[in-house]
Amino acid sequence: MAKFDILGIGNAIVDVVARAEETFLSRHDMRKGGMALIDAAAAAALYGAMPPGEESSGGSAANTCAVAAALGARVAYLGKVADDQLGGVFRHDITAAGVHFPSAPLVGGASTARCLILVTPDGQRTMNTYLGACVSFGEADVDAALVAEAEVLYLEGYLFDPPAAQAAFRRAAAAAHAAGRRVALSLSDAFCVDRHRDAFRDLVRGEVDILFANEAEITSLYEANRFEDAMESVRGEVALAALTRSEAGSVILRGAETVEIVAAPARVVDTTGAGDAYAAGFLAGLVADKPLPVCGGLGSLAAAEVIGHYGARPEADLRALAAGLL
Amino acid sequence: MAKFDILGIGNAIVDVVARAEETFLSRHDMRKGGMALIDAAAAAALYGAMPPGEESSGGSAANTCAVAAALGARVAYLGKVADDQLGGVFRHDITAAGVHFPSAPLVGGASTARCLILVTPDGQRTMNTYLGACVSFGEADVDAALVAEAEVLYLEGYLFDPPAAQAAFRRAAAAAHAAGRRVALSLSDAFCVDRHRDAFRDLVRGEVDILFANEAEITSLYEANRFEDAMESVRGEVALAALTRSEAGSVILRGAETVEIVAAPARVVDTTGAGDAYAAGFLAGLVADKPLPVCGGLGSLAAAEVIGHYGARPEADLRALAAGLL
Repeated sequence: MAKFDILGIGNAIVDVVARAEETFLSRHDMRKGGMALIDAAAAAALYGAMPPGEESSGGSAANTCAVAAALGARVAYLGKVADDQLGGVFRHDITAAGVHFPSAPLVGGASTARCLILVTPDGQRTMNTYLGACVSFGEADVDAALVAEAEVLYLEGYLFDPPAAQAAFRRAAAAAHAAGRRVALSLSDAFCVDRHRDAFRDLVRGEVDILFANEAEITSLYEANRFEDAMESVRGEVALAALTRSEAGSVILRGAETVEIVAAPARVVDTTGAGDAYAAGFLAGLVADKPLPVCGGLGSLAAAEVIGHYGARPEADLRALAAGLL
Repeated sequence: MAKFDILGIGNAIVDVVARAEETFLSRHDMRKGGMALIDAAAAAALYGAMPPGEESSGGSAANTCAVAAALGARVAYLGKVADDQLGGVFRHDITAAGVHFPSAPLVGGASTARCLILVTPDGQRTMNTYLGACVSFGEADVDAALVAEAEVLYLEGYLFDPPAAQAAFRRAAAAAHAAGRRVALSLSDAFCVDRHRDAFRDLVRGEVDILFANEAEITSLYEANRFEDAMESVRGEVALAALTRSEAGSVILRGAETVEIVAAPARVVDTTGAGDAYAAGFLAGLVADKPLPVCGGLGSLAAAEVIGHYGARPEADLRALAAGLL
């Protein structure tokens, strides 16, 4: 039996969440609902213009790890923070969530990554990420022995933005397969797919066993006009895919099998982390050998909890909420 | 006309808010509902034991300033943060809330103060404060010209904990009165009153024009067994007192006049900042020359907003909520 159910690798980020009107987005040329990369100067300028915020640990794969641990999975995480106060916050939170986090901090380099998130009155989040210390995450940060000890290696697509991480990503996938483990990938963001489409296409075909994507991401990956076309393309390329469609629920594809999952009822306050939480619920079910409809149901339930409040990590007792399913 | 309606002085603190069970409080010997002072080592140990948290700017008088500014008052604030990431967060948030914050940061000393707040399922908050850079706030940090430019000087009782701040406190009160301004004091916490009862009694008699206290604080100040007795004691000593009683509303005393205010309906999620918000609403009404029942109503309304969510600063548009009153 593997020591961990899930090992996540991603950009280790602290979120700064503020409420803003649509006019704030247009005034700052932001694409609503997307994630833009910004440098230190732009981050300082945007922060200066932003309303008061709340800081909490984020990072896509890290959110998934925290939610999966809350559901009882045994989880580890690799990612690079700096040796600063926000790095301490990130380390505390993921550790307190029950996730093993052995990555050493970066000393004397860039500061811990920050994602400046504007939540509009409709609950949509628009993200601006300063990658900071994350750009120093590379091959040397991947412990192949740890990868071999985890049932599922979970990688976030955002990891393709800092260049050194791509090599780390491939090294981790190779180590997982060498140990007979499965590799899961989340496409993260349609614009991120745009930036790295060819690399993602190669990976999905060659390395990915489980793929998570939303409608915009999967149609972008295959440059498809219709969701149904993208669905058939991905079915031919990965063993297992879970495609989320917001309030329309999700679709799970395994070979010729198609499982449709309804969205769990939710009052939308802040969609930050919805996809991360879905992947967590799904994987928590999968590693517990639950049937696909239960895996999808767990994903929907975790996503519904997270979008019901500000922040990407659960506030309620997810294990109690999922009591009938896990 | 004064340049500012309110000048607040207090401990500049970043809150770390986490949800915890009652058993966590008893295991760590905490007095539920109170504020305990802890040193750097105890803060590190407690943080290590705490569940994942969310960081947001706090500090009692700073919260009051942010809420009063949200209600349209012209507000300034003095307090000491360090030249570190959390100090940057504090400065950003209070500035973005529309509060003038001229205090220079402390360089090369203790870190920015943190308050580790555990919120139990009943919505009660239990606070553990590491004062950090706040202990260096002293007389030299009080700009008498700025004090003279504000209609009301608002001081938090917590400022009596770091020793140098007591002198700053008295200097500010003297400068305010020399300029014909009014001095308001919040008693902050019953245990804080216990620690500094004689000094507070002197101040209330000699320097305070407007006093804010809750039931536990005012009975502690006068070592009274009954609220009614404390009420009559304070009536003889300050020109204007607003005494809050949680869901029982508040009582305003001005000379022989007694005004009872009902609590605004609220779902209690987290009581952090309730008293701070009440004082803000009250003062925003007072500086706008509203009658006492309206001042109290504004206090209740602001408190109800703040206890309906995690964190001590408003999430809703307070000016819109208070449209009929201001």
